[in-house]
Amino acid sequence: MKGKRVHANPQSSKHPDPFPMHKLKRVDKPTTRIVGKVERVDEREGGLNRATRGDFGSKVQQERFRFVQKHPISASLAGMTANFIDTVDGPVAPQKAPLADDPAVLTRHIKEFAYFLRSDLVGICELPGYAVYSHDKEGNGLELNHRYAICILVDQNYKTFNGSTGHDWISNSQSFLAYSHSAFISCIVASYIRKLGYPARAHHARNYQVVVPPILLWAGMGEMCRIGGAVLNPFLGPRFKAAVVTTDLPLVSDKPVDFGLQSFCSICKKCARECPAGAIPDGGKTIYNGYEDWRKNVEACTRFRVLNPNGAGCGRCIKVCPWNKADTLHHRASIWAVRHSVIASRILLWLDDILGYGRPVEKDRWWFDLEDVNREPGQEKYVVPTKHKQS
Amino acid sequence: MKGKRVHANPQSSKHPDPFPMHKLKRVDKPTTRIVGKVERVDEREGGLNRATRGDFGSKVQQERFRFVQKHPISASLAGMTANFIDTVDGPVAPQKAPLADDPAVLTRHIKEFAYFLRSDLVGICELPGYAVYSHDKEGNGLELNHRYAICILVDQNYKTFNGSTGHDWISNSQSFLAYSHSAFISCIVASYIRKLGYPARAHHARNYQVVVPPILLWAGMGEMCRIGGAVLNPFLGPRFKAAVVTTDLPLVSDKPVDFGLQSFCSICKKCARECPAGAIPDGGKTIYNGYEDWRKNVEACTRFRVLNPNGAGCGRCIKVCPWNKADTLHHRASIWAVRHSVIASRILLWLDDILGYGRPVEKDRWWFDLEDVNREPGQEKYVVPTKHKQS
Repeated sequence: MKGKRVHANPQSSKHPDPFPMHKLKRVDKPTTRIVGKVERVDEREGGLNRATRGDFGSKVQQERFRFVQKHPISASLAGMTANFIDTVDGPVAPQKAPLADDPAVLTRHIKEFAYFLRSDLVGICELPGYAVYSHDKEGNGLELNHRYAICILVDQNYKTFNGSTGHDWISNSQSFLAYSHSAFISCIVASYIRKLGYPARAHHARNYQVVVPPILLWAGMGEMCRIGGAVLNPFLGPRFKAAVVTTDLPLVSDKPVDFGLQSFCSICKKCARECPAGAIPDGGKTIYNGYEDWRKNVEACTRFRVLNPNGAGCGRCIKVCPWNKADTLHHRASIWAVRHSVIASRILLWLDDILGYGRPVEKDRWWFDLEDVNREPGQEKYVVPTKHKQS
Repeated sequence: MKGKRVHANPQSSKHPDPFPMHKLKRVDKPTTRIVGKVERVDEREGGLNRATRGDFGSKVQQERFRFVQKHPISASLAGMTANFIDTVDGPVAPQKAPLADDPAVLTRHIKEFAYFLRSDLVGICELPGYAVYSHDKEGNGLELNHRYAICILVDQNYKTFNGSTGHDWISNSQSFLAYSHSAFISCIVASYIRKLGYPARAHHARNYQVVVPPILLWAGMGEMCRIGGAVLNPFLGPRFKAAVVTTDLPLVSDKPVDFGLQSFCSICKKCARECPAGAIPDGGKTIYNGYEDWRKNVEACTRFRVLNPNGAGCGRCIKVCPWNKADTLHHRASIWAVRHSVIASRILLWLDDILGYGRPVEKDRWWFDLEDVNREPGQEKYVVPTKHKQS
């Protein structure tokens, strides 16, 4: 391309990230071994979609439509997020903007832009073909040939997790806080890239064409952890949700990270011990769809989240994870120690229990326990929930 | 009301705000004197609405529809914000939720909720009758009898202001960053309150029924500053936009603050000196609609923002304001000093110029200068803007 174009800013500081992601060890392949062919996944086979179609029985099927609605905060967040269902894609400007030819400049720019939009962490990778769903929720076959994927991570709020047990009435709201904000940001990023003359589509909790975890891995946002199917970032722990923008804008991939999590999760097992559904294995990895990984019991996890009689949803595994900490100097020191010593990991794990991490801290409990006992939309009737015996 | 209800959390820390707002001196009335009857304002008389109807000539009228669209970031942000035009209000749940009877508990809860939703600052006041527009943009008479107003402030991004001159191509994007996020948050807060059984309406940049500055004053979010019609917060400076939720949920008002700004702005005048439109007075206060205040030349300000040939919009006054600083210890010390000594204010002002504050810092300049020279929507054609002589 010829003509005047926007240029790099050579003086800009090297790392735009709010956390020292550049200090992590980078590796060529994710630390979760791929031992066979990874097949594309059908969106209809996800836990909540199986609940919807009745695979887990009629009670789960019924409650699946209520479990986000039953608390007024998650219901409000989910309601607003619905505005972004149809804003994921749109027309591409007919002319390419006169951008710098250097993909490194564009990469830096897109990251800075996503941080400007209040993302908590951003990473980029080439879109692995197997990360595209084979079929959407309606059973339509999907093709998506964008070359790159931009991950937009939003924190679920440390303070709220601190005040929560992880499976009480605020649980779904925390998920939807991060789902809604990452959805909002991803749609703006995609719109911007299309204006620059490149195709771009946002993928978020209300409208995905991609499976998020493998994209997070390749973009160096974290490693797979014992909580099956979840990626853990050393600074945010597993306490985030991510939206994705896929595009053909020329970018430079980040590389996967290795901060010692595979060996840490082998010895920790705190999430397995604390999971109220018994859905997280405390044993070794197994092989599934080409991955060697810890695999949770999706049915047990979905059942518990949907039916939870003493809360709305569940994120107990996130709450109790020793990596779910505020970003303090001593947490950063612990990250360093874990990476370099198994003994340090064991000592820190012992301390984690001794110091009471994983327990709800009453002073940070700001929400009200409320349950909508009326199933008619728009006819909310909230009561203070009574404690049920766990079914 | 009888029956089981949610209760206060006595152990919760006293101040949920991210800045020490509780250390500011509180006063009974805003520091901007009201010397007569304040009349309700007609929304059609705002600067941009007058530009729309042609009061400032046909060139301003034409450009008014392009000045946000001409840069791809502000265009994307404004596009997404349009999704919130119709989400400001909705049906109120037919039954009141069993909340605590204590408005102080509800106030604390609403603030914590708004912070959870990623607000940067939150305040509450009784809605002054004169803060309700007399007519909307279409000329419909307005009545709004909600008792309380909740202010939701979002920062326009310190780093970006640091990299900018304040009147270059990122300027509108900064406004819309804060407009869009505060709009998003305000609609969720209003939806939540309606689910609790109380009427609530969000007011944001794309759909207001209220004038925001007097609400900010009564809610103690800051004092009126020399930048006419703008409220300045000691920790965010004038670098924020606010959305509002009006409601009848029983709340407790914050009180107006006095941190010495009236005397500071009398001597500072940096915004008046630096305003590229010459729209900010460097003299004393005048009386307008019952207020004794600095009053900017709205036409000159609007003209410059809309026509700016070397940028998109303008926030030069925000950029150069000595209160536009990162929230550091030495900034907090300066806030304290200004409040206690006019000599300290003079020294700090002298230092502000000497240290080069108000100049763009190249390393923080992350965006691309681009201008859409095609006026057809969906047919964007971006070029690298050529420097124009200021008209």
